Amino acid sequence: MTGTPTARYGDPDAVLGAVSDVIRLQLAHRSVRAFGPRDVHDDELTALIAAAQSAPTSSNLQPWSVVAVRDPARRARLAALAADQRFIAQAPLFLVWIADLGRARRLAARAGTDVDAADYLETTLIGYIDTALAAQNAVVAAASLGLGTVFVGAIRNSPEAVAAELRLPPHTTAAFGLAVGAPDPDERADVKPRLPQQAVLHHEHYDADAADGHLPVYDERLAAYNARFGLHGNWSDRVLARLKGPESMAGRHLLRDTLRRQGLPSR
Amino acid sequence: MTGTPTARYGDPDAVLGAVSDVIRLQLAHRSVRAFGPRDVHDDELTALIAAAQSAPTSSNLQPWSVVAVRDPARRARLAALAADQRFIAQAPLFLVWIADLGRARRLAARAGTDVDAADYLETTLIGYIDTALAAQNAVVAAASLGLGTVFVGAIRNSPEAVAAELRLPPHTTAAFGLAVGAPDPDERADVKPRLPQQAVLHHEHYDADAADGHLPVYDERLAAYNARFGLHGNWSDRVLARLKGPESMAGRHLLRDTLRRQGLPSR
Repeated sequence: MTGTPTARYGDPDAVLGAVSDVIRLQLAHRSVRAFGPRDVHDDELTALIAAAQSAPTSSNLQPWSVVAVRDPARRARLAALAADQRFIAQAPLFLVWIADLGRARRLAARAGTDVDAADYLETTLIGYIDTALAAQNAVVAAASLGLGTVFVGAIRNSPEAVAAELRLPPHTTAAFGLAVGAPDPDERADVKPRLPQQAVLHHEHYDADAADGHLPVYDERLAAYNARFGLHGNWSDRVLARLKGPESMAGRHLLRDTLRRQGLPSR
Repeated sequence: MTGTPTARYGDPDAVLGAVSDVIRLQLAHRSVRAFGPRDVHDDELTALIAAAQSAPTSSNLQPWSVVAVRDPARRARLAALAADQRFIAQAPLFLVWIADLGRARRLAARAGTDVDAADYLETTLIGYIDTALAAQNAVVAAASLGLGTVFVGAIRNSPEAVAAELRLPPHTTAAFGLAVGAPDPDERADVKPRLPQQAVLHHEHYDADAADGHLPVYDERLAAYNARFGLHGNWSDRVLARLKGPESMAGRHLLRDTLRRQGLPSR
């Protein structure tokens, strides 16, 4: 698959002066939410995880694990816990990525020593960040094998029920899911345009006025993109609706207390 | 560049039954901490950011920004704030990745509405996670252009001084740095072996005993790898030392209070 800067930015004038096959593959990314019947083979799973493990990790801590769920009944239960998104039950493979400080805590328990740094928000963050770096490598690796993916943040809607389903030990938490499978060629979806590069890239220091000046044209581009799929609203409207308040968070406003109960005090 | 599973795992028996050029590039990843004299061109920077923007993002929020620092004096000041790591001053390009809820807050202020969901830890986490997904795409894109990179978590040692240096507005924080440049071919470094895949990949549910059974062989492999570079200690020793307590965190145990002062209350 090969993508273009014009589709990426919804801008007919967008060009790249440096490019590679890898970057073309990245530009072509879209979330896949409908999957064909073919399975994801064990060899492919092994390759995705090897790619994930090749991502950088802070001080080589490797503070993550991943649970590969293929059992249809378990995928259906996880779908029910994650906003009833049916593609979780439909995808042949559902990966649940775990921010994992349990491995280090178990090491410490066996050594009879303390790892008090694991109590702090900084260390919880390292867990999530390193899990994300790893998972994104898996996403790109999957695309290179012709597989489609979509992240599932809704796995954080009910973290304790997910932990029970996956028998997660203390000091671990499900960071996000990733559905993996062969893309259904009939899915109505396309590369979603992103913010103009000038809205996110600053030089030497942050300049909010200059950056935000590029938002109105993006609102127009995204409204046009949404209209192609029968959807209303521009980017700003959708961001404001998504972040309106705790009632727009599907239970995730409780995450801090949940993490504490899961042994990630994040103080 | 092309990597192998045997180097990735420090295991002569490691093989992959499915592979691609992208996965071979990912397997070859190592952190680069010594850079040659050639510059990173503007076209290359544009391509890295386009790759970063192509990563998935929760609800298309795009809650990140990036500051490209080329000015040698500014790079030297940032190096001083980030554990005096001299490669920050040496790399031609230093990218500071910003978890950015400021853009949405400014939208809300202009619209005269509230975005109370931005107050919660869940939303701060989305900021860091989406920043990490984007940055990892840039890392792989850089490798595809022959550039080396290394993440700098130490940018979180002094987040408020970094924010002042980069004139970061409220509701934003530096998540991590990324030094970018042409690898110095004389750097003594290699692909660092990762945990055996069986230590991180679980099937259907988490199994701590089975996974942790693969740690002793990894400790042996990593001790042998470290010895090649004149370093002592296996993986377990280093993890326990790194997480010993707040004194091993270079000031980052204060992150929660700092985030609150930066307008990311994370409650």
